[in-house]
Amino acid sequence: MKNSGILIVVSGFSGAGKGTLMKRLLEKYDTYSLSISMTTREPRLGETDGKEYFFVTKEQFEQKITENGLVEHAVYCDNYYGTPRNYVEEQLIKGKDVILEIEIQGALKVKEMFPDALLLFVMPPSIEELRRRLNGRGTETEEVIEKRLQRATEEAEDIEAYEYIVINDDLEVCVDEMHQMILASHNVPARNMKFIENMRNDLKDLSKGE
Amino acid sequence: MKNSGILIVVSGFSGAGKGTLMKRLLEKYDTYSLSISMTTREPRLGETDGKEYFFVTKEQFEQKITENGLVEHAVYCDNYYGTPRNYVEEQLIKGKDVILEIEIQGALKVKEMFPDALLLFVMPPSIEELRRRLNGRGTETEEVIEKRLQRATEEAEDIEAYEYIVINDDLEVCVDEMHQMILASHNVPARNMKFIENMRNDLKDLSKGE
Repeated sequence: MKNSGILIVVSGFSGAGKGTLMKRLLEKYDTYSLSISMTTREPRLGETDGKEYFFVTKEQFEQKITENGLVEHAVYCDNYYGTPRNYVEEQLIKGKDVILEIEIQGALKVKEMFPDALLLFVMPPSIEELRRRLNGRGTETEEVIEKRLQRATEEAEDIEAYEYIVINDDLEVCVDEMHQMILASHNVPARNMKFIENMRNDLKDLSKGE
Repeated sequence: MKNSGILIVVSGFSGAGKGTLMKRLLEKYDTYSLSISMTTREPRLGETDGKEYFFVTKEQFEQKITENGLVEHAVYCDNYYGTPRNYVEEQLIKGKDVILEIEIQGALKVKEMFPDALLLFVMPPSIEELRRRLNGRGTETEEVIEKRLQRATEEAEDIEAYEYIVINDDLEVCVDEMHQMILASHNVPARNMKFIENMRNDLKDLSKGE
């Protein structure tokens, strides 16, 4: 059944635990590849090209945009960030499910370019819990927390665009549930049209007595 | 997350192994209830009312139709067969996922009445395998087998109306996959609108500083 991989886009509220969840998913199952972003920002100490990011110049990045070499891109703090299409497509062909963490606007763009992409939305079990986690980080000012909650309010409007919601209550349970959803999503008819069409043709040939 | 159950409609080609699959699913997991059909045909030796079927008279059945007490019904060999709505709704409220085996026309009717219903389509791994299984039963004439293949050709046209396809190759693997799909389907946004709306409202209240 499973031939080529699926592109998995993970979005969700800041503080919902996306990062931890994806890290654990990649540790636990070997069928996933994490998409590596391309950026024009300077590498920090200890960061390696091709590991944390593909580090490129502004000119190289804009060249990539021109040649349609990015699945999506955005500007953040005067730097470009984007998803190279090559790497994603290579991994999909290898049969890997490629995971991409981006916010909702990017997710919708990816879905346009890859209609078979699976969109997952990570949510906390409750808003009280989300606030608790944002406070608990201890690194954010009240103003930043308010901004994130404001952003969550906007993002919550588009949850129906996602195929599944992932409720991050207990990490281990959640990772397994997420893996299950991904496995199940491989069996949606739209992702198996070649198999279905082959079967239809075989049935028609049989009816004709061939 | 999981509050009330989901109505699961299982269809698929004759010979794809639906019956065996569902029997094993019910044995292996205790979260499922099998819907019991109502019929006007005579009970056979050893059949008990309320176990294999609910046995009723033609008048009782037609009364059920009139009062909209059936999820779907059909006539087969001069007898009525149908799915009582009461039993289905009771089990769903109890949190059970209720399984219903019906053909495609019935499945689409159920989906109209229960928009949250999950439609699964069971397929053999190949048409050669389907033919082998139909021949292997040894109880069917070539004419009956041809009729079934003809019917499969028609049913194959509507596979896209189903949420997942279930490829029945190895029984045990397939039962677990089917269980996974059902679990995953509980996390589709459309089946969690109450939870999502509550979260949206909580976020709005927070933004207002309440």
